[in-house]
Amino acid sequence: MIQKLIRKIKETNAPIVVGLDPMMNYIPEHIQKKAFAEFGETLEGAAEAIWQYNKEIIDHTYDIIPAVKPQIAMYEQFGIEGLKAFKKTVDYCREKDLVVIGDIKRGDIGSTSAAYAVGHLGKVQVGSKWYAGFDEDFATVNPYLGSDGVKPFIDVCKTEKKGLFILVKTSNPSSGEFQDQLIDGKPLYELVGEKVAQWGEECMGDEYSYIGAVVGATYPEMGKVLRKVMPKSYILVPGYGAQGGKGKDLVHFFNEDGLGAIVNSSRGIIAAYKQEKYAKFGAEHFGEASRAAVEDMREDIAQALNNR
Amino acid sequence: MIQKLIRKIKETNAPIVVGLDPMMNYIPEHIQKKAFAEFGETLEGAAEAIWQYNKEIIDHTYDIIPAVKPQIAMYEQFGIEGLKAFKKTVDYCREKDLVVIGDIKRGDIGSTSAAYAVGHLGKVQVGSKWYAGFDEDFATVNPYLGSDGVKPFIDVCKTEKKGLFILVKTSNPSSGEFQDQLIDGKPLYELVGEKVAQWGEECMGDEYSYIGAVVGATYPEMGKVLRKVMPKSYILVPGYGAQGGKGKDLVHFFNEDGLGAIVNSSRGIIAAYKQEKYAKFGAEHFGEASRAAVEDMREDIAQALNNR
Repeated sequence: MIQKLIRKIKETNAPIVVGLDPMMNYIPEHIQKKAFAEFGETLEGAAEAIWQYNKEIIDHTYDIIPAVKPQIAMYEQFGIEGLKAFKKTVDYCREKDLVVIGDIKRGDIGSTSAAYAVGHLGKVQVGSKWYAGFDEDFATVNPYLGSDGVKPFIDVCKTEKKGLFILVKTSNPSSGEFQDQLIDGKPLYELVGEKVAQWGEECMGDEYSYIGAVVGATYPEMGKVLRKVMPKSYILVPGYGAQGGKGKDLVHFFNEDGLGAIVNSSRGIIAAYKQEKYAKFGAEHFGEASRAAVEDMREDIAQALNNR
Repeated sequence: MIQKLIRKIKETNAPIVVGLDPMMNYIPEHIQKKAFAEFGETLEGAAEAIWQYNKEIIDHTYDIIPAVKPQIAMYEQFGIEGLKAFKKTVDYCREKDLVVIGDIKRGDIGSTSAAYAVGHLGKVQVGSKWYAGFDEDFATVNPYLGSDGVKPFIDVCKTEKKGLFILVKTSNPSSGEFQDQLIDGKPLYELVGEKVAQWGEECMGDEYSYIGAVVGATYPEMGKVLRKVMPKSYILVPGYGAQGGKGKDLVHFFNEDGLGAIVNSSRGIIAAYKQEKYAKFGAEHFGEASRAAVEDMREDIAQALNNR
C-alpha cells in the first residue's frame, strides 16, 4: 500500500492528505437541514449529514489528492450511526481509488491489538468465512505499550500489504509533557522514532517502509532530527494550516528525493468555505472551496520545497 | 461514579472486574451453532454469538461483582455488527446496575479527545437534541499525547460524574520499552503516575478521585511505588490469572483501608469452563463455571489481603 501511496503522490504532485474530520459546525446548514428533514434530529440524521458532507468534499477533490484521513473519533461520538458513516466514507474513498488512512490511534497488547488490526486493516474469521470490518489502507497507532502492542498490527500489515503511521511526536501544545522527556540525553520521541525505523526495516516496499510515523508540523526542528532517524519511514504530518504549521515548516520532513512525507490538513480544507479567502464560493459550493484550498496547499508545499 | 464503584465493591466484598473480552474460541459451540443457524456465518452471526455468550456470563455473575470491563477491540474487529454487540452489552450491564468500564484506550488531542469522551462517557448534540453514543461509566485512556489529550476526557467526567483509568504501567512484557525509561532517575510510568495524581485532585469523590490509573498485576513492585504516588487514585489492575498475576502480587495495589484497587480477570472468568478446575460444569453450563471462578478469585484476593 505504501507503493500505491507513493505512486499517487507522484501522479497528483500533492503530498497531501485531506483529513475527513467532520464537526457538526463545519457542515453547511442546507446539508444539515436536508438530513434532519429526512431522519429527524437523531444520531441517524447526524450521520446522514456527515456522509453527505464528506461525499461532496470527496467528489470535488478525489482526482487531485492521493489520500484521505478520516478521524474515527468524529464519527464514534455519534455511536453506531456515526460509525456507519465512517464505514460508508472509507468504502466510498476506496471506490474512488483514494488511499485511506484510518486515524484511529489504537494501541493495546497482544490479542487485543491483533483484534484492532484485524478490524481495521485485515479480515476476521467467522466460522469458515472471512470478513473485513472497516478495511482502511493504513491506520495510526499509539506506541505507549511497546513492541508487543505494535507487532500484531505489523503482522496484519505484512499479510494484507497495508501500513501504519505510529505516533512519534504529536502536534499538540502539551505533546512534550511525556514525549520530550530526556532519556540518557535523548528525548522519548527519538527513542520511539528509532523503534519505528527498526520495525520499518522488516516491512520494506521499494524505497520506503509500510511502517511510517506521525510527527507534527508544529515541531519542524524535531521533524528535521526524526527525518534522519527514520530515513525509510513515511512521515504523516498533521498540524498544517489551522494548527499553525506553514509550508516552510514542512521542508525538513521531506527527503532529498522530494518524498517521505505526506501533510494532513483537515479544517483548512473541509471547512475552507468558512475562510474569508474562499468565502466567494458560498456555503452552497463548499466542495469547490475545498478543491481550491487543496490547490493552494499543493502550491504552498511545492514552493517551499523548491526554495529549500 | 467512583462512589458507586466503591459502594458496590464494599457490598460484594469483591474488588473484581470481569473483563468481557469475548474471543470466538471461548464461545461454546452450542452458542455459536445457534447464532450461525439464525444469522449464518456472518458478522451479524458472530455478534449474536458474542451477545448471547456475554448475557449468560452477566446473568450468572452480576449479583456478586461490582463491575465489568468490556474490551471494545474484541467487538470492533467484527465491524459495525460487533460494535452493536458492544453497545447491547454495555446497556444490559447498566440495566443490571453494574459499573461499566469501557476498555477503549482512546487518546487524541483537543476536539478529537473531546469527541471520544462525548461518545463514550457523555452526550453529543444533534440540532436541539442530545444523545449518548455508547454510555459507559468509566473509560481507559492512553496518556502519550499529554495533558491536552486527557483534559477533554476529564471535562466530560466532571459534567457527567463519570471516571477514567489512565494507562500508567501496562501488564504486557514489553511495557517497559518506553514506560520504564528513566528520566532524571525516575521511570516514565512514575511521571505519568504523578500526572494522574494531579489530574485526580480536581476530581475528588469522598475518599477517592474519579481519575484512576491502570497498573499491571504483573509488576507488583512498581505497583507498590505507584500506590504511594497516587494515593487517592483507584488502580485498575489487569494481568491477574491468565497473564500470570496472583493474589499475593496484588496486596500492594490496595491501600490500608482495603480499597484503592480493582482487579480485572477476563479469560480466567469468562472462559473458566475450559479450565480443568471448572471442567465439571461442562460447556453447556459455562455461566456457572464463570460464577465459581469469580468466587474463587474473591477468596484468593481476600486471603492475600488478610495475610498481609
